[in-house]
Amino acid sequence: MLAIQKTPVLVRGTGLLGASIGLGMSAAGHKVWLSDPSPTAQRIAEDIGAGEIWREEADQDGLIVVVASPPEVTAQEIAAALLNHQGLVLDIASVKAEIIRDLLRRAEDDADPLTREHLRRYVGTHPMAGRAQSGPVAARGELFTSMPWVICPVTDPVTGEQLSDPGFVELATWLARTLGASVHRMEAAKHDESVALISHLPQIAASLVASRLQDAPASALALTGNGLRDVTRIAASDPNLWVQILSANAAPVVEILYGLREDVERLIGTLEDPGAHGGQADIAQLIAEGNAGVARVPGKHGAPPQSFALLTVIVDDRPGQIAAVLNDVAEVGVNVEDLHMEHSAGHQVGMVELSVLPGRREELADALTEMGWKVVLS
Amino acid sequence: MLAIQKTPVLVRGTGLLGASIGLGMSAAGHKVWLSDPSPTAQRIAEDIGAGEIWREEADQDGLIVVVASPPEVTAQEIAAALLNHQGLVLDIASVKAEIIRDLLRRAEDDADPLTREHLRRYVGTHPMAGRAQSGPVAARGELFTSMPWVICPVTDPVTGEQLSDPGFVELATWLARTLGASVHRMEAAKHDESVALISHLPQIAASLVASRLQDAPASALALTGNGLRDVTRIAASDPNLWVQILSANAAPVVEILYGLREDVERLIGTLEDPGAHGGQADIAQLIAEGNAGVARVPGKHGAPPQSFALLTVIVDDRPGQIAAVLNDVAEVGVNVEDLHMEHSAGHQVGMVELSVLPGRREELADALTEMGWKVVLS
Repeated sequence: MLAIQKTPVLVRGTGLLGASIGLGMSAAGHKVWLSDPSPTAQRIAEDIGAGEIWREEADQDGLIVVVASPPEVTAQEIAAALLNHQGLVLDIASVKAEIIRDLLRRAEDDADPLTREHLRRYVGTHPMAGRAQSGPVAARGELFTSMPWVICPVTDPVTGEQLSDPGFVELATWLARTLGASVHRMEAAKHDESVALISHLPQIAASLVASRLQDAPASALALTGNGLRDVTRIAASDPNLWVQILSANAAPVVEILYGLREDVERLIGTLEDPGAHGGQADIAQLIAEGNAGVARVPGKHGAPPQSFALLTVIVDDRPGQIAAVLNDVAEVGVNVEDLHMEHSAGHQVGMVELSVLPGRREELADALTEMGWKVVLS
Repeated sequence: MLAIQKTPVLVRGTGLLGASIGLGMSAAGHKVWLSDPSPTAQRIAEDIGAGEIWREEADQDGLIVVVASPPEVTAQEIAAALLNHQGLVLDIASVKAEIIRDLLRRAEDDADPLTREHLRRYVGTHPMAGRAQSGPVAARGELFTSMPWVICPVTDPVTGEQLSDPGFVELATWLARTLGASVHRMEAAKHDESVALISHLPQIAASLVASRLQDAPASALALTGNGLRDVTRIAASDPNLWVQILSANAAPVVEILYGLREDVERLIGTLEDPGAHGGQADIAQLIAEGNAGVARVPGKHGAPPQSFALLTVIVDDRPGQIAAVLNDVAEVGVNVEDLHMEHSAGHQVGMVELSVLPGRREELADALTEMGWKVVLS
């Protein structure tokens, strides 16, 4: 195993993710170098403590290069980093197969200085973390805490042989773990299919729903409930970034959109002519299939969502009320697994919904009621 | 104005909403009668304190009848209630125009005992509240607290003349306010278009996304983040209820689905052949339109979402930590407008994201940091 004590890291690209990696690795005691084509972004990242601006004459011993460039230039940045440096090069782009295909093409091309030997030092990765805000000012070292971080070693598409050196794969894994992430190793193609489903599809759905609200009358929006809020929350994403992500993962995304289109088509057919096709049974089936799908979405710490029991506490909407509830919950000694506030327009009352282990719910409800809270079992 | 002190209420249909109305009106000191075709549902509602089982010989003076039947039988239940009782009859079905059309048809039909005179005593309403669970056991009197409740007086579709008596409209409004709801008066057609957009479309989108997860590999689901969780949360809805809702509101829903289908079609075209059409500009436009739409979604108390500033506190995932944070927040005297927990598979660290008034954020962050918390400004 390579020496990873005080490993120096060069982060190329100091946007939200790059600067966050810089902050996290600096906090863990490692030397972090920063570089970005934008002098401003580079300087902001340095100012917030993400590291020091890269100097060509710096000591490269054991240097890890993290390519955190925009997706569309990632492959060429990886190639440049492999040619200019001696150690591990990893990238953090959210789509992996296209980048690996591009690198393999370069390695096969005799006119290109990149060789298969270089690819031994490359590991594709994808930290599944982000924020509504972008840029280095939004960066934080804890961004990756508890988040999945996928590691995709390069394999030869024909022979299936792994090209990434196992030692470098370990080193990439170490970096992700140092930042507090939960590591998942996966083939690039499998990764891309997975994120098409669990990240790109929800983004598309949220944007599709939200885009219909652009010209909605204010009187309709005044009726907004938590359902619409939840469904559209991630619609506030960066268009420029998502063009690159969806374009790079076009094939798996389109495959899913075919299925979506078919379902929308069937639903339209049923609603236009309830007597035709399966009629109302088609609608029931769509909703029932949604029930089955959502039951598989893991909750906190990967636990299935149905493993927690709910109870709701009604509170006044003034400083200290939620704290007071949770204080009393802590006194009873019950851990809150999740917490959700329900509220809506017009009133100054809040409902705090607590998820707890099913075995502790009744006990907690009784204790809180005795302490004077209005508790409703869900 | 009618005397509304100790007004008796007959709730016909003791499912989640009917039983919740019974609980709320009972708690407010009014006599509540219950009836349901299912003796079991009726008895459970009585057992949980929602009211007393209806007796034909009961005093009907000033009685309000709330029809809380399944949507598909609501119109006929309203007609029966108008014929059998003397006072206000209101329903709470989530789609309004079709019910009103049905009642007007009956009033025009000489063979039907219902007349336009009867409709003076009818007011259509829609409390926008619900839960993942259904049935009277899930009922709670606070279900409507802070939630929108739409009041739709009947108007003549030809002359535009209001048929519902203004006094009865006031009485229906009073009932909604007594249950803590925030009242919105609206034409039935306008209501149906509004809910198609802000309630039925998100439900369909959540079900469409969730249904694709049914056969997803576990390794893909292990990468689940808050985005997928948010988008699919409401997919756990009752198929039987949603068949009735979507069927009853078919025209406005289909109108929206045409637009959705067009967007999906354009996105597929762009991803299949990035050179064609507007190419990548089409994708950027979709995401940008989503940005514009979601910016219009009101937050808590109807405030625009951008009016709050975020800060995140990193906590250990053990009993009392969130309470301890909020305790300290309360000590600083800052009101938490919204609270969101971020977490994911594998780790025992939590991130508590607090929304506060922008003017108080820096002050709170400084104070919490001084108190020893790990605070990150967002």
